Amino acid sequence: MTTADSAAVDEAVAWLALLRAPGLGAAAIRALVARHGSARAAVAQARRDPTIPSAARDAVCSPDGETQASDRRWLDQPGHHLIPFASEDYPALLRDIPGAPAALFVAGDPIHLWSAQIAIVGSRNATAGGLANARAFAKAFAQSGNVVTSGLAEGIDGAAHAAALDAGAATIAVLGTGTDVIYPRQHAELAARIRANGALVSEFPPGTAGKPEHFPRRNRILSGLSLGTLVIEAGLNSGSLITARLAAEQGREVFALPGSIHSPLARGCHKLIRDGAMLVETADEVLDQLRGIGARLADHLRGRLGDHAAATGRQSAALEPPKRDPEYTRLLAALDRAPVSLDELAERSRLPIAALSSMLLALELEGVVSAASGGRYVLA
Amino acid sequence: MTTADSAAVDEAVAWLALLRAPGLGAAAIRALVARHGSARAAVAQARRDPTIPSAARDAVCSPDGETQASDRRWLDQPGHHLIPFASEDYPALLRDIPGAPAALFVAGDPIHLWSAQIAIVGSRNATAGGLANARAFAKAFAQSGNVVTSGLAEGIDGAAHAAALDAGAATIAVLGTGTDVIYPRQHAELAARIRANGALVSEFPPGTAGKPEHFPRRNRILSGLSLGTLVIEAGLNSGSLITARLAAEQGREVFALPGSIHSPLARGCHKLIRDGAMLVETADEVLDQLRGIGARLADHLRGRLGDHAAATGRQSAALEPPKRDPEYTRLLAALDRAPVSLDELAERSRLPIAALSSMLLALELEGVVSAASGGRYVLA
Repeated sequence: MTTADSAAVDEAVAWLALLRAPGLGAAAIRALVARHGSARAAVAQARRDPTIPSAARDAVCSPDGETQASDRRWLDQPGHHLIPFASEDYPALLRDIPGAPAALFVAGDPIHLWSAQIAIVGSRNATAGGLANARAFAKAFAQSGNVVTSGLAEGIDGAAHAAALDAGAATIAVLGTGTDVIYPRQHAELAARIRANGALVSEFPPGTAGKPEHFPRRNRILSGLSLGTLVIEAGLNSGSLITARLAAEQGREVFALPGSIHSPLARGCHKLIRDGAMLVETADEVLDQLRGIGARLADHLRGRLGDHAAATGRQSAALEPPKRDPEYTRLLAALDRAPVSLDELAERSRLPIAALSSMLLALELEGVVSAASGGRYVLA
Repeated sequence: MTTADSAAVDEAVAWLALLRAPGLGAAAIRALVARHGSARAAVAQARRDPTIPSAARDAVCSPDGETQASDRRWLDQPGHHLIPFASEDYPALLRDIPGAPAALFVAGDPIHLWSAQIAIVGSRNATAGGLANARAFAKAFAQSGNVVTSGLAEGIDGAAHAAALDAGAATIAVLGTGTDVIYPRQHAELAARIRANGALVSEFPPGTAGKPEHFPRRNRILSGLSLGTLVIEAGLNSGSLITARLAAEQGREVFALPGSIHSPLARGCHKLIRDGAMLVETADEVLDQLRGIGARLADHLRGRLGDHAAATGRQSAALEPPKRDPEYTRLLAALDRAPVSLDELAERSRLPIAALSSMLLALELEGVVSAASGGRYVLA
């Protein structure tokens, strides 16, 4: 190992210490690293940094030796990457979303994160017809040079990944676990294929087990990496509707396949279409629509990269606070350090409940707001 | 027969003479009757009226004796009605549409024309699932006190009429033939049931055979009578799409049922949804949506009736020229007495082809424009 390699691994280990510290959100970690110039410096100075909450400080200053050794082992393995927010390898589309992860763990080739991606999501209990549609659309996207991005779940996700690989194309799976914890277990072989031709991506450090609350967070990365999200089959309570809502809030296109009015798995798609998702019958309709958006995003990226190069430091760009519209300002003014109910927030902010709940989710993902007991919310 | 009855029949016979005259459009007939005070006076003065084209004048002044005798026989039968545009029995919602018929022929009870109507239309070659959906929606509309209006065609239309009747409710069939010419023939029994509990309605005089060009004209009455139009199953070339487009242009709500992306009979519905029709899964969604519109239309009608009462004469209200938006003004300016191609019209008017073709259809139905050979259009 060269000195440079060793320095890089030390920096990654320091990142892992920050990412594993309890109660340190993405925004706080990004601010810390920017202020200190590197994760190593942030960790080294942690004892004297009054902005770090005490529990986090203790964890950073007295890391668990076994965890640290296992993090080093993960980092040493070929094809394993930790990509901090400020890295030039961090995917530009994901950087654009509110509450972007402070860092990504990648098992596979991170180059695929820069390909044009289309997310395909849907029910875990899909019908045979739904699975066939997932395969057909994934194959068409793959054959037209796009990377299919999904969540490695049973049903639609698995069918989409497998069809992309079968078409000889790369595919990206975004996980709600560490990249070394494959869930569901029966997708271990599929995950190995994705690692070999594509990438497993997660914001959760190695060894993290799946928890229900991880999956909505995972979904924002899935949609945030992609130009657009296609929902194949979804019930009214499907997590795919969260992904679709996040995609729309991220300014990305949402597509949905219609189905019979008697099919419970078409209801979620129909709801999305009523809410403004584009009804599609063919993969070409998706590709046609995204061509325009892809071109606009490319222009936008060129602009951003230009600004970036012109700026004195990369980290100042990374630290730019997310832009808020007036509704967010009203919501933030209505929030408090003491938990406030949704009804109370609606009254204070004069925002409709539906808008509030999606804004609160966005703020929760950014680490600005926490959910308290009794459906109440509190400033984090 | 009383003198009053006999005078009414004479007036109806005079209306029939005008309606049967070649080349006299709805607007011209309405103007004639208004100017002369009655259809009888218009017929009596026809020889000296220079505004009547000569072929029409000849037909009006020298009516065919056999036709006139058969018209009298039709009018004499119980349940047969001719309702001129200026009559207070003429349905108010239909009066509102551009190119409203000069008169309606009704076989059945015209009171149903004043009920809240919901149109159900769709493919003649519907699937078993489509027919079941037509029956279920028609039953629900009927049970909630609405009249189901359709076109007596095979497939969706017939299923909707029959289900409404089976639910003990009235239903209205709008025909592209005279009310005494039942098409398709196998719907003769259904037509007899509709006559007994509902109405057969047509703008075509008794004895008129079905011609292909009658059906788009029929469709505008179907949608014009109804608060909204529900399309159950429709291919991309279905006449139901014309009905839906006319409904939208008439300011009425359009609803469509989604279906599998692999079903050719869902394609038309999906196109409508993309173009702004409301995707519905249940009859309640239609009823909820129409409740609001029904209330607004009722207010509008109250307003109109108020204006009407305030006006000196009914016929001056009836003669009010249809309001034109600036796009129609541009299109009319681009038209000529010599045929003009669609491309040329697009260039002259700077209107998109898609908008042009639907505006031209509306003008054609109003008798302002005629289609000429080679896809060209000419002022009528």
